[in-house]
Amino acid sequence: MGEFSPRRIVFEIKDYVPGKNPPRPDVVKLASNENPFGPSPKALEAIIREMRNLHVYPEQKSLLLREALAQKTGLAEENVICGNGSDDIMQIIGSTYINPGDEIIITKNSFSLYELIARIFGGTPVMVDLDNQQVSLDKIGAALTDKTKIIWLTNPHNPTGTFFPKEDLTRFVNALPGHVLLVLDEAYAEFADDPTFPNGVDYVKAGKNVFVLRTFSKFYGLAGLRIGYGLATKELVAPMFKTKMPFNVSRLAQAGALAALEDREFLAATYANNAAGKKYLYAELERLGLAYKKTEANFILINLKKPADPIFLELMRLGVIVRPLTSFGFPEALRVSIGAPEQNEKFIAALASIIT
Amino acid sequence: MGEFSPRRIVFEIKDYVPGKNPPRPDVVKLASNENPFGPSPKALEAIIREMRNLHVYPEQKSLLLREALAQKTGLAEENVICGNGSDDIMQIIGSTYINPGDEIIITKNSFSLYELIARIFGGTPVMVDLDNQQVSLDKIGAALTDKTKIIWLTNPHNPTGTFFPKEDLTRFVNALPGHVLLVLDEAYAEFADDPTFPNGVDYVKAGKNVFVLRTFSKFYGLAGLRIGYGLATKELVAPMFKTKMPFNVSRLAQAGALAALEDREFLAATYANNAAGKKYLYAELERLGLAYKKTEANFILINLKKPADPIFLELMRLGVIVRPLTSFGFPEALRVSIGAPEQNEKFIAALASIIT
Repeated sequence: MGEFSPRRIVFEIKDYVPGKNPPRPDVVKLASNENPFGPSPKALEAIIREMRNLHVYPEQKSLLLREALAQKTGLAEENVICGNGSDDIMQIIGSTYINPGDEIIITKNSFSLYELIARIFGGTPVMVDLDNQQVSLDKIGAALTDKTKIIWLTNPHNPTGTFFPKEDLTRFVNALPGHVLLVLDEAYAEFADDPTFPNGVDYVKAGKNVFVLRTFSKFYGLAGLRIGYGLATKELVAPMFKTKMPFNVSRLAQAGALAALEDREFLAATYANNAAGKKYLYAELERLGLAYKKTEANFILINLKKPADPIFLELMRLGVIVRPLTSFGFPEALRVSIGAPEQNEKFIAALASIIT
Repeated sequence: MGEFSPRRIVFEIKDYVPGKNPPRPDVVKLASNENPFGPSPKALEAIIREMRNLHVYPEQKSLLLREALAQKTGLAEENVICGNGSDDIMQIIGSTYINPGDEIIITKNSFSLYELIARIFGGTPVMVDLDNQQVSLDKIGAALTDKTKIIWLTNPHNPTGTFFPKEDLTRFVNALPGHVLLVLDEAYAEFADDPTFPNGVDYVKAGKNVFVLRTFSKFYGLAGLRIGYGLATKELVAPMFKTKMPFNVSRLAQAGALAALEDREFLAATYANNAAGKKYLYAELERLGLAYKKTEANFILINLKKPADPIFLELMRLGVIVRPLTSFGFPEALRVSIGAPEQNEKFIAALASIIT
């Protein structure tokens, strides 16, 4: 017994390092892969309409939003669960499925929450190395044991922007043992433009043990609202409604996300801007002689080949906040979000002035 | 190994039974202890001002709101943590402090989340009986063992509305062994008007192992927004920032709650309405010859002395939704929220027409 104290795992958890928010309006933030066009205007209209009901508890199972997401993805509403951001859904996956001692396979240099969730529920994180800044399905396969319960994969991967083509991922999914769940975090999938990019929903439709995570934080411009969703077989989703907090998704998140789904003009502009910004940044980085990874997401990893932290600080002094990847384990790389044209230009001008 | 399957605990969890939401605007909901005056108007103004930033991730630690709460309570911001509703904070208490096998003392016939949280983190719920619909500190004391980690208490208690006076609770707190945390859920404390009602903050100031939970869902009229907070010693709060989800509180919740704290006119009207509604309902229930519990909250437990479910259904047909307490373990009791005068009158008229 002794004194009241936290669990041992608390001392194993590293602090989450968020992107910095701008101190002044003239500072450009390209650090957290947010939407440079702001929030979906249709979402804001819906939030104003819903506000008058804020004294009433939210619909417990986000019914209307799940119906709309089912229709959009060609699934049934029983295949959909909504959360307070997709990290809430990650936590519900943990509370529903992770037993103490379960092995949880996580790729190194990725989103730190996967490891936090594993530790919170007493799972054993099994960290798998990347291959040349690319997630290796072979290495993940080699890490599987009888104790493996969950594999976390991000497609496109954060922070590298790289992806698995459909053929490779399908082969991997088909070879998975029956006691393993693959969580496929598709936070950035709406930005992908490679024709071989797979749609995780196809695995759900095929009845595979694949849990697809999506978010309204990136493409839909609603990071501040906290709303994400998960897609999986009914058998995988149903028990999660027992372990989630009853009112996990606010009224404004349910209403705003529902409206954002239909904001065609905003979504088309977001997609087109990202495609154009990517081309521009590729060309400018090549002009500056900098190495980068081709991306399917709304950010680009730049390999500076020297320590990134001082360059991050210098960029901040010049009014551009990017993400040094030291906390991800790449101390010589920066991740820059693809912004609006004038933001991209400001970033390139600042970077050029530092490195040339 | 075998097939992928949920944790055993999932099968031990009962479904959460929420209050029903009104199917038509003319139906009065007195089922979930929501604010009959709607949301705080100042909160809505703040939400509209904050909306434009919704594409940006929220401040990770709800800094401005915590500063305001610290000032309001006479504590420091390091004593405050905010969550996506107080149930989020309950979950963070679990992830930070509950080890598998820890005994978690819970009073029977109370808010079902306490048991859910215990089970999610592998704790062993130890259920303590009430004494004549009143939580018994003696019975809780008798349930303490070397394995006890947490005691959950609600003051005023939900669904009975009863409370512990300061003298009794202080004696109990002072006698707690050093290895035990008392979580004091004060969701309804703002409504209390008995001069002997204790303020949990005093125990925090005295450095006790007491974690006070508060919410904006009831008094502040923001149940649909999802925002609650916890107050405890710095030593208790600090590790919780490691295990919480990084962006657990939305931008709109942070901004709305901050403004609601200052909405003096709305808060004064809410308090006065509750005090007056309580008097009215006491008198009318006595006139109808019905037994009820004196309450320090914004609801009243009525002992019908016959099955409550049919009367709940009959009331619903008459346009009033209340809460039958069958799921709380009181099959012959109803809980009715104290509403605005016309809502209380509609409830009394409907109830009178059924039972007389």
